[in-house]
Amino acid sequence: MPGNTFGQAFRLTTWGESHGPSVGCVVDGCPAGLELAVEAIQRELDRRRVGQSKVSSARQEPDQVEIMSGVFEGRTTGTPIAMMVRNTDAKSSHYTNIKDLYRPGHADYTWDVKYGFRDWRGGGRSSARETIGRVAGGAVAKLLLARYGVSIVAWTAQLGDLVAQTFDEDEIERNIMRCPDAAVAAQMVERVDAARRSLDSLGGIVEVRARGVPPGLGEPVFDKLQADIGKAMFSIPAIKGVEMGEGFGVAHLRGSENNDPFVRRADGSIGTTSNHHGGILGGISTGEEITVRLAAKPPASIAQRQQTVDRAGNPSDIEIHGRHDPTVLPRLVPIAEAMLALVLADHLLRQRLARADF
Amino acid sequence: MPGNTFGQAFRLTTWGESHGPSVGCVVDGCPAGLELAVEAIQRELDRRRVGQSKVSSARQEPDQVEIMSGVFEGRTTGTPIAMMVRNTDAKSSHYTNIKDLYRPGHADYTWDVKYGFRDWRGGGRSSARETIGRVAGGAVAKLLLARYGVSIVAWTAQLGDLVAQTFDEDEIERNIMRCPDAAVAAQMVERVDAARRSLDSLGGIVEVRARGVPPGLGEPVFDKLQADIGKAMFSIPAIKGVEMGEGFGVAHLRGSENNDPFVRRADGSIGTTSNHHGGILGGISTGEEITVRLAAKPPASIAQRQQTVDRAGNPSDIEIHGRHDPTVLPRLVPIAEAMLALVLADHLLRQRLARADF
Amino acid sequence: MPGNTFGQAFRLTTWGESHGPSVGCVVDGCPAGLELAVEAIQRELDRRRVGQSKVSSARQEPDQVEIMSGVFEGRTTGTPIAMMVRNTDAKSSHYTNIKDLYRPGHADYTWDVKYGFRDWRGGGRSSARETIGRVAGGAVAKLLLARYGVSIVAWTAQLGDLVAQTFDEDEIERNIMRCPDAAVAAQMVERVDAARRSLDSLGGIVEVRARGVPPGLGEPVFDKLQADIGKAMFSIPAIKGVEMGEGFGVAHLRGSENNDPFVRRADGSIGTTSNHHGGILGGISTGEEITVRLAAKPPASIAQRQQTVDRAGNPSDIEIHGRHDPTVLPRLVPIAEAMLALVLADHLLRQRLARADF
Amino acid sequence: MPGNTFGQAFRLTTWGESHGPSVGCVVDGCPAGLELAVEAIQRELDRRRVGQSKVSSARQEPDQVEIMSGVFEGRTTGTPIAMMVRNTDAKSSHYTNIKDLYRPGHADYTWDVKYGFRDWRGGGRSSARETIGRVAGGAVAKLLLARYGVSIVAWTAQLGDLVAQTFDEDEIERNIMRCPDAAVAAQMVERVDAARRSLDSLGGIVEVRARGVPPGLGEPVFDKLQADIGKAMFSIPAIKGVEMGEGFGVAHLRGSENNDPFVRRADGSIGTTSNHHGGILGGISTGEEITVRLAAKPPASIAQRQQTVDRAGNPSDIEIHGRHDPTVLPRLVPIAEAMLALVLADHLLRQRLARADF
Repeated sequence: MPGNTFGQAFRLTTWGESHGPSVGCVVDGCPAGLELAVEAIQRELDRRRVGQSKVSSARQEPDQVEIMSGVFEGRTTGTPIAMMVRNTDAKSSHYTNIKDLYRPGHADYTWDVKYGFRDWRGGGRSSARETIGRVAGGAVAKLLLARYGVSIVAWTAQLGDLVAQTFDEDEIERNIMRCPDAAVAAQMVERVDAARRSLDSLGGIVEVRARGVPPGLGEPVFDKLQADIGKAMFSIPAIKGVEMGEGFGVAHLRGSENNDPFVRRADGSIGTTSNHHGGILGGISTGEEITVRLAAKPPASIAQRQQTVDRAGNPSDIEIHGRHDPTVLPRLVPIAEAMLALVLADHLLRQRLARADF
Repeated sequence: MPGNTFGQAFRLTTWGESHGPSVGCVVDGCPAGLELAVEAIQRELDRRRVGQSKVSSARQEPDQVEIMSGVFEGRTTGTPIAMMVRNTDAKSSHYTNIKDLYRPGHADYTWDVKYGFRDWRGGGRSSARETIGRVAGGAVAKLLLARYGVSIVAWTAQLGDLVAQTFDEDEIERNIMRCPDAAVAAQMVERVDAARRSLDSLGGIVEVRARGVPPGLGEPVFDKLQADIGKAMFSIPAIKGVEMGEGFGVAHLRGSENNDPFVRRADGSIGTTSNHHGGILGGISTGEEITVRLAAKPPASIAQRQQTVDRAGNPSDIEIHGRHDPTVLPRLVPIAEAMLALVLADHLLRQRLARADF
Repeated sequence: MPGNTFGQAFRLTTWGESHGPSVGCVVDGCPAGLELAVEAIQRELDRRRVGQSKVSSARQEPDQVEIMSGVFEGRTTGTPIAMMVRNTDAKSSHYTNIKDLYRPGHADYTWDVKYGFRDWRGGGRSSARETIGRVAGGAVAKLLLARYGVSIVAWTAQLGDLVAQTFDEDEIERNIMRCPDAAVAAQMVERVDAARRSLDSLGGIVEVRARGVPPGLGEPVFDKLQADIGKAMFSIPAIKGVEMGEGFGVAHLRGSENNDPFVRRADGSIGTTSNHHGGILGGISTGEEITVRLAAKPPASIAQRQQTVDRAGNPSDIEIHGRHDPTVLPRLVPIAEAMLALVLADHLLRQRLARADF
Repeated sequence: MPGNTFGQAFRLTTWGESHGPSVGCVVDGCPAGLELAVEAIQRELDRRRVGQSKVSSARQEPDQVEIMSGVFEGRTTGTPIAMMVRNTDAKSSHYTNIKDLYRPGHADYTWDVKYGFRDWRGGGRSSARETIGRVAGGAVAKLLLARYGVSIVAWTAQLGDLVAQTFDEDEIERNIMRCPDAAVAAQMVERVDAARRSLDSLGGIVEVRARGVPPGLGEPVFDKLQADIGKAMFSIPAIKGVEMGEGFGVAHLRGSENNDPFVRRADGSIGTTSNHHGGILGGISTGEEITVRLAAKPPASIAQRQQTVDRAGNPSDIEIHGRHDPTVLPRLVPIAEAMLALVLADHLLRQRLARADF
C-alpha cells in the first residue's frame, strides 16, 4: 500500500530525502549468480550526478555508492541488495526562508496536505535526489538484462522547438545535453544557458529504447508491458506525457497504415516489416525495438519572482535561489533508462511463470 | 505476479474470454455500507455495449450483469463483490479460418509466443470484451467516489484531424461519437462511415477528467497518482499515448509559463489560478481538475487484404471479416472513465493511511 | 490490502456468502498448458460437501461447479480461471430469529464491529461455505503439482483422546471420519454421534503431508515455506494450532536428538536419515516429506442453551438450531489438502525465479 | 514475489547477512507524525543482542542503529524509514573449514539447492542476525501501537519440562532467561548451562500477548488476524509450532466448554467472560487479550560430532565451534514481540479501510 516499491518479481524499494543522512535502495528478487561489481553501479550514478555542466545544478557530491548486502564473492546471492549513498553537500540554509511558502509547480503544498507537515529541506523526499536509488537499482537491472541480450539507450530528442535531426548513438554521451545530434545539441546548450540567465527553465522530450527484448514479456490484462512502462515513466518527477510506438500520432493514422505486417525473418523467427507498434502488441513484447517518448516539464524551481501563498494561505512573493537545473533533460536520460530496465527485468522474470511445460 | 488484478486497497480482478462461458470480475476492498444497486452497474455496461450504432461493431448481446456476492440488503458488506455477464452471441465460426494466422496489429502472435497456444476465438482474452469487467468494477468505484463528491467525465476529443471545438457536456451522450461538439460529431460520424466503407479504421483522442478530487491523493514515489493513472490508461487496449495537464505541450513551455501560482480561494482553501499541472503535483492531487488525454490507435481488425504469416512462419494473406468497430473512440469513453474511477477509489482509500493522527 | 486473495505467483481469490447467489473463486497465475477437466474439480468439491454422513451437517446441495473462463480445449490458457457454484439450499429462516444475537465462538460480533453490519444469513462470508472456492482452487493446484510429482494427503489423526494408532492410507476415504485407522475411526464415529445427541461438538487434530516436493521451495526470510503454510492453515476456520515436523515436541528435545543427519541417498541425491524437521530447513524444502498438524476447535454452533448478548449489548439466551457439523474433522481433510496444495503450487512457480542461470 | 518484505499497509523489508557490511531494514507505510527517537529503536536492539549472558552466544557487537531516512524533527514524515546496523564482530574464520559441509538442522543444504551457491560466512542471510531488522522495524510498530493503547509482552514459558508456574511480569527482564517465574528461571539457567557443557542445546516455548487491541482488526478470509500472526511467527528461525488461545488443547474440548459467552462489560462495551478463543474470532480481534505460544527447536549449532555430507554428497563428520546459543528462548522474546507488533500495526492501519462511512 505505501508507494515506495516498484516491481513484482524484480523489486526496487527506495528511501531517503534530499537533506537526510542518506539516500538508497533495496533490490529484492535479483536472481542469484549475477556478477555484480560496485563499479557498474557507480558508473550509472556518475551519469545521473549533478554539477556536471552548465546545464545542470551546481550541487557538488561524489554520490559514492556502497553495497550493503546481497553480494558475495562478486556475485548476487539471491538475497536483498541494499545500496546507499551518503548525502554530503546538503545545504538546508537555502530553504529556511521559504520553508513556509508553497513553491509553484512543486510538491510542497500537496505533501503538506497529505502528511500534515513535511521535510522542507531541499524538497525532502520529493527531491530528484530520490532518483539515486532508482538509478542504482536500474544498474542492477541493466546487468541482468545484458545477460539476456537486452540493451537500453536514451537521449534528449527535443528542447522547445529544437529537435534532434540526426542520430549518432556515440554522440549521446559526448555532449552535455545527451543529444544524438551534435549540431542541435550545441543549439540546445545555448538555449538552456539563455534560459538560466533569464531566470527561467525549459521543457523537452527524452526518448528511450530497448533492443534485444525477447518476445513474450508482459502480463495481460493490467500488467501489460506498456502499462508497467507507463507507470514507471509517469513516476519520474516532471514527466507529463508518455507515448510508445506511434504515440499520439495514431490519432492521424488509418488501420491500414498503422498495422505492421508480420514476416518471417532470415533467421526463421517472426517479426514485422515496420514498427508502428513500438515493440508491444496486446500488452506483450514482439521482439521489435521498444520505443518510448517522455515529455518533461520545465523545472519548477526558477529564480524569477512568482506569486504564491504560505501554509496559512496568505499571499506572498517567492524567489527560489539555490542550485537548480534549468532543464532536466540530460539528467533524465539515465533515469529513464533505469526505469525501463526495471520494468523489463521484472517482466523477464515473470515470463518464466507463463507455461506449465516451461 | 499474474497480471489480472488492478489496485491495492480497492482492487479489481477481471476474468473471461470473448467466446468463453462468461466475462466478469471481483471487486475486493470496497468498503462496507455503500449503497449498490445492480442498475447502476448495468447503466455503465449499457454505455460500453457494442451494436449501438453504425460506428460500432454489430455484435448483439444484452450484457446483462448479475451480482454474485458482496451485497446484502442493497449495501456492500465489505466482502468481495463478484459480477458476471454471460457471453451469448459468440460466433467462433468467424475465426476458424484464420485461427492459424497472425492478424497484424493484434495480440495473436505475442500470446502464442508467451503461452505456447491461445484461445483464438474472437481474440480470446485479448478481446475488448474483457473490458466488461473493468466497466462493472469502475461502476462500483464511481458510486464510492460520488459519496465523496468526485465525478468523472470523458469524451471523444479528436478523430484524425477533426477536433472538438466547443464543449457542451450534455451533448456527449447525445451523439454516437460521444463528442461534446455536435457539429464536429456529425463530421466524425461521416468520416468513420467512410472509413468502414473503405474497409479501414481510424484513430483518435479521448479526454477524461475528474472533478471534486480532494487534495492529498497519491502515494510517492512509485505509486504517484499520475503513475497509477498512466498504468491504468496504458492497460486499455489500443492506447498508445497518455498525457496529463499540458502533456507533450510542456516541451514548448518555460517554467515561468508552466508553473501555476497558488492562491487562497474564496472558501479559504488553497488552489491555483491556472491548471497547467492537471490536478497533480509531486504525485499527489491538488484539488484542481485532473485532466488526462489518451491516444487510441485505429482498430487493427480491418477487412482489407493484409500481409502476414501463419504459426509456422509461412507468408499468407489475411482478410478479417466479422463484427468490428471502425473506431474505438465512443466505446473507449466509458472504459476510460472506469479506469480513472478505479485509480481514484484506490487512492481515496489509501489516503486514509497517511497520518498517525488520522 | 483486502484479504480475499492468497498466494503470489499462483493466486486464489474467493468470493461468496453462505446464502448469497453463489460462491466461487478466480485462480490467476496457473501456467498455460495444464490439462484441466471440470471433473477433477468436482471430485474435490464432492469430498468437501456436506450432507455426506451422520457426522456432518444435513445441508443438501450438489455443489455443482462451473468453469467460467481460462480453459480452452481442455487446457489452461494462462488466463484467470473463474469457477462458480450456485447456492441452492440456502435456508435463511434458520437465522432470522438469531440475527441480532452474537453466537458464542462465532464471527458475528467481530464482523459487526468491523464492518458496521453483516450478512447474518448462515454466517454470511464467515460460513465454511466459503471454503468451496478454496477447494476448487486447490484442485487446480493439485493438478499442477501432480505434473511435478508432488502428492498431498490428509487425514483425521485425533478426536479428543482418540488417536489413530495405525496408518492405512487406503482406509482414509473408506470411513466417514477419514481416519487411517479403521478401528479408531469406528470409535470416533460413536463419540461424535454421542456429542451430537448431547447437543455438543468435538475438536481434534488433522494431519496433512506432501510427498515428492522438490528441494528448494520457499522464499526467505518472510515467505519461508513454513511461514506460508502457517498462514494458509491458520486462515482455515476453526484452526487454533499448527505444527510442522516435531512441532511442540521440540520443547522436549536436545539439539543432538532433533538434528537430522544428512546422507547421500542411493540415487545420488542428498537427504536426511530422519525427518524431525518435517521437510523444511531454513524456510526451504529439503525434499523430505512435509508434515503438518492442525488443531481444530469444536464447532461453535451447538444446540445447547448458551449465554450471550444482542447487538445492543443486552444479555440473552441463545440456542442454535439448523444444520451443523458436530465435528469439522472429516470435512477439514480436503480443505487442509487444498491449502497445502495452494502454498506448494505458489512456491513451485516462485522457485523458477531464484537463479540468473535458470 | 521475493520474500523479504512483511506486511501490506505497514511494511517491513529487511536486508543483510551475518558477515556482510551491514544488516538493516526499511519500514514503509508508517503514518506521518509519529514521534520516533533512535533511543526507542536501540532499546529493543539491546534486548535482542547477543553476548548478554551465559545462556547466549559470545559474539560481541554494540549493534548500534542509525536511522537513515524518514524522520524529520523527531517525527516520522510518512516516507520510508531506513535503519542500519554495521556488522563489526564478524569472524568468518570459524566457518572456512566447514564451508563445504552441510550443518545438520541448518539452512546450508537448502540454500545451496535453491540458489546454486551461498554466502557460507556465519550462515549468511539465514543467520539470526537478520532479525536485527525485524526488531528495529518492530520497535517502530510498537511506538505506533502504543499511541492506540496496545502493548505487547513476551516471555519464556517452558524449557524442556521446566514450566513457569507463576507470572510476575516485572520479573521477565530481571533474569537472563526472561522467565516470569524467578525460581523456575534459576532452574532453567542451570539446565542450559549443563546442556552447553555437554555440547548440546535445548528447545522450549515462548508466549507472547497483546493487550488493548481494539476489536475489528483482521481481514477475512485469507488475511485473518490469526493467519498473519501464524505467518509472522513461523517466519522466525527455529519455530516449529504456533498456537493461539487454547491451541492444541482444543482437541480435547467440547463446544460447550470452548465457546466463550458474550457479556456487556461495565463500560458498556461487549466482551467475553473467558478467553479460550485467544482474542480472535472469525479472523478478527474481539478486544480480549491476544494469546500466542511458540515452540522453538533446540539450536542446530552444537559442538558435538555429527554426521553429514559435503556439497558433493560425500559423508563427513562435523563439529560446529564458534559462538552459539545453547537455547534461543531469551533472545526469541523480543523477536516474537516485534513480529506480533508488526502484524498488529499492519492491521490497525488496514482496519481504516473497512467502512465507507469511516
